[in-house]
Amino acid sequence: MSDYPSILLENAVRQVGSLPGVGKKTALRLVLHLLRQPKHDVDTFAESLTKLKNEVRYCRICHNISDQDVCPICASHHRDKQTICVVENVQDVMSIENTGQYSGVYHVLGGIISPMDGIGPKDIEIDSLVARIEPEDIQEVILALPTTMEGDTTNFYIYRRLQALGRDGLRISQIARGVAVGNELEYTDEITLGRSILNRVEFKG
Amino acid sequence: MSDYPSILLENAVRQVGSLPGVGKKTALRLVLHLLRQPKHDVDTFAESLTKLKNEVRYCRICHNISDQDVCPICASHHRDKQTICVVENVQDVMSIENTGQYSGVYHVLGGIISPMDGIGPKDIEIDSLVARIEPEDIQEVILALPTTMEGDTTNFYIYRRLQALGRDGLRISQIARGVAVGNELEYTDEITLGRSILNRVEFKG
Repeated sequence: MSDYPSILLENAVRQVGSLPGVGKKTALRLVLHLLRQPKHDVDTFAESLTKLKNEVRYCRICHNISDQDVCPICASHHRDKQTICVVENVQDVMSIENTGQYSGVYHVLGGIISPMDGIGPKDIEIDSLVARIEPEDIQEVILALPTTMEGDTTNFYIYRRLQALGRDGLRISQIARGVAVGNELEYTDEITLGRSILNRVEFKG
Repeated sequence: MSDYPSILLENAVRQVGSLPGVGKKTALRLVLHLLRQPKHDVDTFAESLTKLKNEVRYCRICHNISDQDVCPICASHHRDKQTICVVENVQDVMSIENTGQYSGVYHVLGGIISPMDGIGPKDIEIDSLVARIEPEDIQEVILALPTTMEGDTTNFYIYRRLQALGRDGLRISQIARGVAVGNELEYTDEITLGRSILNRVEFKG
């Protein structure tokens, strides 16, 4: 006999348990919670997921998730279209938007180059990034990828591709790396601290 | 403008974030994970939840979740039908089954008496428990409810109801409480430790 008193319950727990970071016990707790909700709420819950999957679109300019052909950021007249910030995914756009420090537009790669995972330059939106920069009068590309080996590899690859365009006056920058604001030096990892000394910047008193 | 680049995304995140213990960031991560899965998988995921809600049944004897009119435990010829273990919910049945130490049947209350939450004796399956014991030749009722004030209240209420039946020879027991196996005394809470001294049992060397 299976651990579960019902195949329906077992199926639902298996599905919820397949989500990343959700164990079997948590899955059971979540499913039994849903089961206690009114039928209409469970239908709404399930529908929100299928509807998202079936109807979601991606901005044809920046590839961010969008309900329209062009996302609100690319469509906005208040955004600086000459500055493109290159990010790995949708969450990164939301994180940068939440800082309130950026008024340019984005380019969502949908991943980063990772030979270990079999992800090459053709699997992510690099060609479309290059195509965006070629004809337009883009002034700056900001590389805001993870500060990992894969992020560095992707940064370098994009840098080479953009250099090959021979566009004088195109600034290519990357987000600052160093000791996080509010952190004690003694608790900062050695690689970050070492690099933040090597890459020190002038003090503007 | 909303935090989310898409209303569909926002709706899905709100739904997943309404689950207990799932925050907004986790919900976004889970939803974007689902969005990366094939359409068929997302449909299967959503369907497993609506199907469970729409088609689930409860055993008419013990009120455990079941696919049939009578659950596999109540239907089994290998279980001792004269011993009924009273538990709060479905998870408790699964936990006790996993111990492999119990061969009787269950009675799932579907909650415990909790005046703070407005749950009284009529809101849970107590009448059906009493009805089960009245005509049958049940030998023992094991109270396996949480060792909380609400659990104690429910234990006492059930005890009184069963006593009122005037059934001589009906044994009413409760699960043993004390220091958990493998625990150091110094890390055991004082109430548990104090009671485990008061309720000491004879040492069988």
